[in-house]
Amino acid sequence: MTTYVPNQWYVAGFDYEIGRKPLARTLCGEEVVLYRKLDGTPVAMHDACPHRLLPLSMGMLEGDDLRCRYHGMMFDAGGRCVDMPTQDGVVRNFQVKKVYPVVERYRFIWIWIGEAEKADAALVPDLWPCEREGWTFDGGAYHVKADYRLMIDNLMDLTHETHVHPGTIGQPEILGSPIETNSEGDRVFVRRWMKGIDAPPFWRYALKKPGKVDRWQICEFIPPSAVIIDVGVAPEGTGAPEGDRSQGVNGYVIDVLTPETETTAWYFWGMARNFDLADQGFTARFKQQQGGVFMEDVEILEAQQKRIDANPDMKLRVFNIDAGGARARAVIERMIAAEKAAGDAAPTLAAE
Amino acid sequence: MTTYVPNQWYVAGFDYEIGRKPLARTLCGEEVVLYRKLDGTPVAMHDACPHRLLPLSMGMLEGDDLRCRYHGMMFDAGGRCVDMPTQDGVVRNFQVKKVYPVVERYRFIWIWIGEAEKADAALVPDLWPCEREGWTFDGGAYHVKADYRLMIDNLMDLTHETHVHPGTIGQPEILGSPIETNSEGDRVFVRRWMKGIDAPPFWRYALKKPGKVDRWQICEFIPPSAVIIDVGVAPEGTGAPEGDRSQGVNGYVIDVLTPETETTAWYFWGMARNFDLADQGFTARFKQQQGGVFMEDVEILEAQQKRIDANPDMKLRVFNIDAGGARARAVIERMIAAEKAAGDAAPTLAAE
Amino acid sequence: MTTYVPNQWYVAGFDYEIGRKPLARTLCGEEVVLYRKLDGTPVAMHDACPHRLLPLSMGMLEGDDLRCRYHGMMFDAGGRCVDMPTQDGVVRNFQVKKVYPVVERYRFIWIWIGEAEKADAALVPDLWPCEREGWTFDGGAYHVKADYRLMIDNLMDLTHETHVHPGTIGQPEILGSPIETNSEGDRVFVRRWMKGIDAPPFWRYALKKPGKVDRWQICEFIPPSAVIIDVGVAPEGTGAPEGDRSQGVNGYVIDVLTPETETTAWYFWGMARNFDLADQGFTARFKQQQGGVFMEDVEILEAQQKRIDANPDMKLRVFNIDAGGARARAVIERMIAAEKAAGDAAPTLAAE
Repeated sequence: MTTYVPNQWYVAGFDYEIGRKPLARTLCGEEVVLYRKLDGTPVAMHDACPHRLLPLSMGMLEGDDLRCRYHGMMFDAGGRCVDMPTQDGVVRNFQVKKVYPVVERYRFIWIWIGEAEKADAALVPDLWPCEREGWTFDGGAYHVKADYRLMIDNLMDLTHETHVHPGTIGQPEILGSPIETNSEGDRVFVRRWMKGIDAPPFWRYALKKPGKVDRWQICEFIPPSAVIIDVGVAPEGTGAPEGDRSQGVNGYVIDVLTPETETTAWYFWGMARNFDLADQGFTARFKQQQGGVFMEDVEILEAQQKRIDANPDMKLRVFNIDAGGARARAVIERMIAAEKAAGDAAPTLAAE
Repeated sequence: MTTYVPNQWYVAGFDYEIGRKPLARTLCGEEVVLYRKLDGTPVAMHDACPHRLLPLSMGMLEGDDLRCRYHGMMFDAGGRCVDMPTQDGVVRNFQVKKVYPVVERYRFIWIWIGEAEKADAALVPDLWPCEREGWTFDGGAYHVKADYRLMIDNLMDLTHETHVHPGTIGQPEILGSPIETNSEGDRVFVRRWMKGIDAPPFWRYALKKPGKVDRWQICEFIPPSAVIIDVGVAPEGTGAPEGDRSQGVNGYVIDVLTPETETTAWYFWGMARNFDLADQGFTARFKQQQGGVFMEDVEILEAQQKRIDANPDMKLRVFNIDAGGARARAVIERMIAAEKAAGDAAPTLAAE
Repeated sequence: MTTYVPNQWYVAGFDYEIGRKPLARTLCGEEVVLYRKLDGTPVAMHDACPHRLLPLSMGMLEGDDLRCRYHGMMFDAGGRCVDMPTQDGVVRNFQVKKVYPVVERYRFIWIWIGEAEKADAALVPDLWPCEREGWTFDGGAYHVKADYRLMIDNLMDLTHETHVHPGTIGQPEILGSPIETNSEGDRVFVRRWMKGIDAPPFWRYALKKPGKVDRWQICEFIPPSAVIIDVGVAPEGTGAPEGDRSQGVNGYVIDVLTPETETTAWYFWGMARNFDLADQGFTARFKQQQGGVFMEDVEILEAQQKRIDANPDMKLRVFNIDAGGARARAVIERMIAAEKAAGDAAPTLAAE
């Protein structure tokens, strides 16, 4: 795969997706089996028994070890074979081809596909709203048959809400408000303020105050593949655009993409908020609604991917509204090129 | 695609198929979106927004213009962008990659895939029975997973009715009657007369007279891909074979093929007749029956295509019964070669 | 196809599968139509009419001849065209591309894909338990999306029963008992004796005696692709391991594989037994149960095949338990190499 940055952390799954039932998931082009040890520590390794290649995800956990369901070869969390039925002892150096560094943070399990020795937990992308005192966070995992960068384009340009989501989150004011795109290092920001407008139903419910509002949408790309969207409203003229959000309500939409193949992706989505914290129903209703909204995006992205595949001679054009996505793609390309230059080629599963 | 003649008119759809809801259809290997302007004029263009390649067929019509459902770019019927949300004005030369000449005639919408400047409405294949005073015409559109030329072979040799349609239109007399194949310019004729036979139920009902009949089937190939089949019966000995059909009943089966890909096709079928004109039920029943008959052909053609794909070393053999189809194929090949010789290569969607 | 031995007999179908309705089946990469003549003799030929390539398996039998359903060309059991509608007589040398030697034996129809002149009925693999005085035999046909050699590996190592079939035929004693692998010419044997154990329910029912038993599983590979598994139990200490099975019950599981493509196969399975001969219900129940057991294997083999396809750099490892399958594969490879060396390359359907 040439579209992702090997030596980076990518989300393998939401915390609740990975447990004591081994999970098979293709991540950055590699087949991975994921599970948790008895103490909850996540484990990730190549999803094929090195004996006869049956997916280990079809196997059974025994304590912290995973036993293949074909001939019963058992491997520990480090990928080393610890039991070979009908063999005297264990054959030397018989082990799963690759064990991946994993770390749990921000309610996600992160995986490092590249060179294991470079995996540093400090490099996990900073999704600070997911672990903030006084806030709550939850979300879901989706699969989309499109290049993950098409989803980043989508998230960095909320103009699309008008035409893609007219019945839900679209609002005419979005088109009427100018955006401001700028970069800070490898981070890219797209800011839109809609001042003195009527709050849409979602935000009216959250704000619990009448009157016009100032609404904001601030998209932030965090390499290699996350977008945090800072959204909220405050009563008009109470100073939100200038930095005082104390009268308003605020949420952070967290979007993290993991390429599955060159043209398919895993999309992890959630929302962090600091209001209605005790209302479990808020989260449940919001996840339900967002599922419907997301399907509208999926329809678009998958149709777009098909046309891109069929028209390799046509380039994606970049206009004003696309500046955020274009800058994010440039960051990704720069990181890939830097790794290549440093000899850190995308790892391949080398022959034995 | 190398199996069709680029600078020719092909049917894009029946008149009733194309309206105010944009229709996506792949024709001669190109992805096309079709719709009608408010005044009914048909429009055809490349089915991808030149911005981010979403199929325009997913978009919304506003008057005569088509707006992309992703970012709201709007294009007029000439493919020129006339509105770009959040952009100051419209970017110069921003337009749909290709707009196709279209013309409506004989109840079909015809499209010209080749060089637009050569498109001349006078070149539409002459399907005169579809627009004849005192006659009525109707039909339907079908999709078949086979090279369109296999269907032309099928239509130019009605011998197949005996074994493919034994329960419906097949009749033993077909095998017993010799055919006569000849060409007039680029048109190919296969004529069969069955004299002094019992009329099959369909024709008995239409003729409304007892007694033996003379029955005819005259297949005419009209390049690049139409077959008109002149069919009918007249009371035996009333002069039909010699040219006097005044005592008989007569219909014209109209078959027009449009390649979709090298191995799939659109098949437009209809019947023109000069009897029972006021019997709307006749048409409805006939379309219903013909749908069943056509599915028998589809089963054959699709199985045939699979075996052809699997046996690239085997050639289709040409015997007496295949003469009509073989001549029609020769005409098509000659036309393709002539265009190539003239430098009129099949158009490709060139890079920007 | 490079994984099978061309000049060998392979099973085309169970005797009851092939009758007066032409059957289409891909065998060793070739599309074959199979039927029986009026006297019951089986016939096999290339499944494409040499005229327009429609599968002949869609055609109609007339006596011993097969008529194509498209244009009615009719072929005798030797593949020669014997009727061409609307043609004067029959075109010389117009015949089906290939007619395959077939022979019926051991309740199977065997086909010879290679050079017809080398086909010798005496070379049919010796499945003697299927036609033994005082024994009965029956079984079924299954399709599996995996290389046929993966199934041979599976059958030559019954260790897998413990983990793949824990709810049915798996038994802990299998893992606890050593195997003995040896070859006799091109035959490979894997023997396992479990002495003084409790009989599993199936064998308890068959033996109809209480007490501990000596149980055996003796797998025998017979080239090119059959495995006979000699199974049974006898009361402990009555001499079965030493050769006296007179106090026990015995069955032979017959497994014959035919490659369909490089990565799919037909699996013919049956059981021959010498007990409860009159109990028709025994056979019916056993086939029903075996279908369920087989689906457990299919799930494993198909998952394994997918991982093998995705990891072309990874080799299947050979440990103690794999010795039988590895030897069987070596025999197959040796036979393929020998044919190649003798200039007996795998036949291809040569161009006309």
